[in-house]
Amino acid sequence: MIAGSTFARHREIAWRGGRTTSTSRLVAEESAIALTYNGSTHAVMMGTPADLEDFGVGFSLTEGIVGRASEIGSIELISNELGMEVRMWLDGDRAATLAARRRAISGPVGCGLCGIESLEQARRTPSRVEGSGIAFHARDLLNAMQALSPLQALNQQTRSVHAAAFWHPRSGIARIREDVGRHNALDKLAGAIVRDGNSARDGAVLLTSRVSVEMVQKAAMMGAPVIVAVSAPTALAIQTADEAGITLLAVARDDGYGVFTHPRRVLLPEEAAPRAGC
Amino acid sequence: MIAGSTFARHREIAWRGGRTTSTSRLVAEESAIALTYNGSTHAVMMGTPADLEDFGVGFSLTEGIVGRASEIGSIELISNELGMEVRMWLDGDRAATLAARRRAISGPVGCGLCGIESLEQARRTPSRVEGSGIAFHARDLLNAMQALSPLQALNQQTRSVHAAAFWHPRSGIARIREDVGRHNALDKLAGAIVRDGNSARDGAVLLTSRVSVEMVQKAAMMGAPVIVAVSAPTALAIQTADEAGITLLAVARDDGYGVFTHPRRVLLPEEAAPRAGC
Repeated sequence: MIAGSTFARHREIAWRGGRTTSTSRLVAEESAIALTYNGSTHAVMMGTPADLEDFGVGFSLTEGIVGRASEIGSIELISNELGMEVRMWLDGDRAATLAARRRAISGPVGCGLCGIESLEQARRTPSRVEGSGIAFHARDLLNAMQALSPLQALNQQTRSVHAAAFWHPRSGIARIREDVGRHNALDKLAGAIVRDGNSARDGAVLLTSRVSVEMVQKAAMMGAPVIVAVSAPTALAIQTADEAGITLLAVARDDGYGVFTHPRRVLLPEEAAPRAGC
Repeated sequence: MIAGSTFARHREIAWRGGRTTSTSRLVAEESAIALTYNGSTHAVMMGTPADLEDFGVGFSLTEGIVGRASEIGSIELISNELGMEVRMWLDGDRAATLAARRRAISGPVGCGLCGIESLEQARRTPSRVEGSGIAFHARDLLNAMQALSPLQALNQQTRSVHAAAFWHPRSGIARIREDVGRHNALDKLAGAIVRDGNSARDGAVLLTSRVSVEMVQKAAMMGAPVIVAVSAPTALAIQTADEAGITLLAVARDDGYGVFTHPRRVLLPEEAAPRAGC
């Protein structure tokens, strides 16, 4: 496994239209990625082995391991034939907090919690985003979604990875990150934005995927006031976006999209100003 | 949360073709689902709250918690406002083995393993499937994929869930299961097949999703000799299918598909008999 190698060419026997041809296809690399803090593994995920510093920082923030990126004292990447390790070292106070949290809860994997206790942990209350005065023109958000495809470099090659991007009304699509997993793509985006010294508070998060509840929870931790997604949301994702104060647009196609929560931040063409209320 | 409720109607402001209409849309339910063994949580996943006995049995088998479904002494479903619990009780020997395994490895979440140790665990060697003499007609597998869509009851409503199905050359599509998560759909299918008293060894697993390595690992644990998927495989999924002896067909469209590993089990129209080798 070489860090940064994101696709490979693979032999394929194509049977199409009744004809058999021997050909090849570019496929996305997938690697086990261990996220460790102060020498101990917190999670192992399968993902695209690229932008891993962004991944480490973003995951740490969206999962609430740290409150600010500066609490990660150092970050290094280790690769071997089994996968990649994102090795992070936390400062003293935060390391002690994480260690205490581990002793107290031990995560969802077989460490003694009963089912109800685990469910209570899983259903975390989302952060409430700010930006109540922000609103974007409906057409601008649609244009942003239409600008995504040519920027999805890995997907252009492999047609099998998701993207998460950050759009700002002045600068357009400021950052895009790709991964075989949609959660990872969003975590990488979260890290990239923060490492740029920026914030998601004054723009929109664009997703090529469906919207499950964890995507909304991560966007809420990023402070993103608006999400626009290609595919549909789940019922729990809508409920969570509503609770978090996030404007959720989804099922984005060439002709438009659906607005599911907090429509005040979308200026529809017929309207001169944001609607009052929600 | 009501067990078995898999979709809900939600209000939507649709902005399409420059017009705004107030409408509604069916969206998929998503729930936290805790899988517990002998009173202790093993995993919590977000998923579709249906077919949860199948999910419990299938997950237990594809993750190697049990070797046979009969080792699960009892299974009950508990629901509350936070989600669902699939409460399983294992027989004495298997319970002791699981408890020892937990003490020894403690899973990937923050229980003291370093990064390299965690990566070694994540990259499990797949089971090797049997069925080397089995082969299916290329056209039959394509017809099976084309028969999937009308059987995806929840997806017909919501357009946002994945399906996993089992096809047999004599009985056609014998079982189909759906979930907002593709791994969950496959685990539910694995459980459904076994609870029917059947095996995946003499047919093909059909997937509406992409093929990541974990999908191949689960199919290998099911003993399935053939996978056919709508979307593309990752490089690691191809490698793992090759190692497991699984015939992997993917990028299935109306006109055909690509054959990525072990083509001997696909009888292409020009061929009178399975090819030797590979």
